[in-house]
Amino acid sequence: MKKLSYAIIGTGAIGGYYGGRLAFSGQDVHFLYHSEYDYVKANGLDVKSVNGDFHLNNMQVYNNTASMPKCDVALVCLKATQNDKLPQLLTPILKEKSTIILIQNGLGYEQELAKLFPTQAIAGGMAFICTSRVSPGHIVHADYGALTTAYLGNKYDVETAEQIKADFTGAGVPYTQGDDLNLFRWRKLVWNIPYNGLTVALRTTTDKLMQDPAARQLITDLMIETVEGARACGANIKDDFVQKMLDNTDKMEPYAPSMRLDYDNHRRMEIQAIYSNPIKMAKAAGVHMHKVEMLEQQLRFIEQHDNNAK
Amino acid sequence: MKKLSYAIIGTGAIGGYYGGRLAFSGQDVHFLYHSEYDYVKANGLDVKSVNGDFHLNNMQVYNNTASMPKCDVALVCLKATQNDKLPQLLTPILKEKSTIILIQNGLGYEQELAKLFPTQAIAGGMAFICTSRVSPGHIVHADYGALTTAYLGNKYDVETAEQIKADFTGAGVPYTQGDDLNLFRWRKLVWNIPYNGLTVALRTTTDKLMQDPAARQLITDLMIETVEGARACGANIKDDFVQKMLDNTDKMEPYAPSMRLDYDNHRRMEIQAIYSNPIKMAKAAGVHMHKVEMLEQQLRFIEQHDNNAK
Repeated sequence: MKKLSYAIIGTGAIGGYYGGRLAFSGQDVHFLYHSEYDYVKANGLDVKSVNGDFHLNNMQVYNNTASMPKCDVALVCLKATQNDKLPQLLTPILKEKSTIILIQNGLGYEQELAKLFPTQAIAGGMAFICTSRVSPGHIVHADYGALTTAYLGNKYDVETAEQIKADFTGAGVPYTQGDDLNLFRWRKLVWNIPYNGLTVALRTTTDKLMQDPAARQLITDLMIETVEGARACGANIKDDFVQKMLDNTDKMEPYAPSMRLDYDNHRRMEIQAIYSNPIKMAKAAGVHMHKVEMLEQQLRFIEQHDNNAK
Repeated sequence: MKKLSYAIIGTGAIGGYYGGRLAFSGQDVHFLYHSEYDYVKANGLDVKSVNGDFHLNNMQVYNNTASMPKCDVALVCLKATQNDKLPQLLTPILKEKSTIILIQNGLGYEQELAKLFPTQAIAGGMAFICTSRVSPGHIVHADYGALTTAYLGNKYDVETAEQIKADFTGAGVPYTQGDDLNLFRWRKLVWNIPYNGLTVALRTTTDKLMQDPAARQLITDLMIETVEGARACGANIKDDFVQKMLDNTDKMEPYAPSMRLDYDNHRRMEIQAIYSNPIKMAKAAGVHMHKVEMLEQQLRFIEQHDNNAK
């Protein structure tokens, strides 16, 4: 097996953790940084992890992709709100046949990317992880960590895909390669749609929502609408999935999902990825997700008025 | 014409204004007060009004209905959240045939009251008014003021109804008596449902909602759902009513509806009256008002967690 080179496009909590694990295990990893570039170049990356802490020094860091080498695998770990930058960011680092893995929330971005880069292998990555960047160069990985990927179509090299899996597994990351990107993306939305939006709209955390009868019913309603939308779009989510998501969340620690963190930190929220795109696709397939749409409308208002800035 | 006696059950901003106008014009008005009793007994009631200021001294005030005389007309101006007290409050002041006018938000309360007081004439009152109690004994009437009533069924005396109308008109209150209580109640809900709930859920005012494209669309959606619910319940609201409500609100000054004021002042919100009852009635008639129901669910959560108390 040849050694693969990895580019981490967007080294935040997710990119820093997965890229950091790969580098710490000896893989050839190139990190794109933005505001933290100088700090990390001087001080390296520090990761406090439930699976064992580690520190990286002398990392291969860059503050633009034009100065990066062409890589075999690009892990896109930017928020989906920044996807309009992807053509410019990815073009300099792609070989003729690289693999692009979008470790992001949302729906439809792999298809958009495939139009721009028709020769590349493109996969979606669903990260099941609690991790956050607490300060420049410092990441805290609090729980979970599994990564599930699925390729868009079959335009990928099976041997390379196997090696990517081996590299992640060797780095201590539970890694599953599935075969139904659409199903995985929609399954993730069944969780993301209620919890991300409601923790922002109601300024709360998952545990408080779960304990309140009205909010719990609303979460259930949003999940059921999402499952109906998913099925109309060909993602055959099973009947017991909603109950499973509720049960899992009951067991979780009080949690502020990524959109709540974005809101609290005055960053753009992934409304388009998590709400607008799924709503549009479900509607085109004949399902009007009423309550999901209302949450989207409220989030659009909140983003414009940023009420937490008072 | 005999002179009618009036009881104001709940002398807040609404009861103080309408009851005050009646008393100031020379009618026989008896005011029920709660926390403001001592102040008003000593100092009277002061009303700053766009239609002319006035002050009342030596008012007939009471701090319980057991000590009030039996009256011909009871104007119930309590919040609907306090309607569980009505049997106890009203029983001592009703003659064999009194008229009870519920000047309140909501749906279904006249019917509930009719079960308790089957011999009385019962009407709903829809106040179109901006008025607020700024301190004990001090009311500011900022805009509008019309009162529309409609009787439940036809168990009322036409002559008495005419005299009530004459008394209000003589007191300077534009007064209309309509004949379709169900239609009037639902029409009021078309405005109340979007603006009351959304100004609380999104911590904002009507003008900001109207200026935001997403919130404006959500308001429109909520109004359309309400019209569909209304029609299923036999209230035939016309097609252009939604646009008319939007146009009217565009012309209004920035406004915090009563539910927003209740929320800000940590009072119970009229969720049951404005949301739960209409949702239930529409559902029984075959219309699921999805977004209205979601707003109800969010308000129930907000009431439990009173996020503004932080």
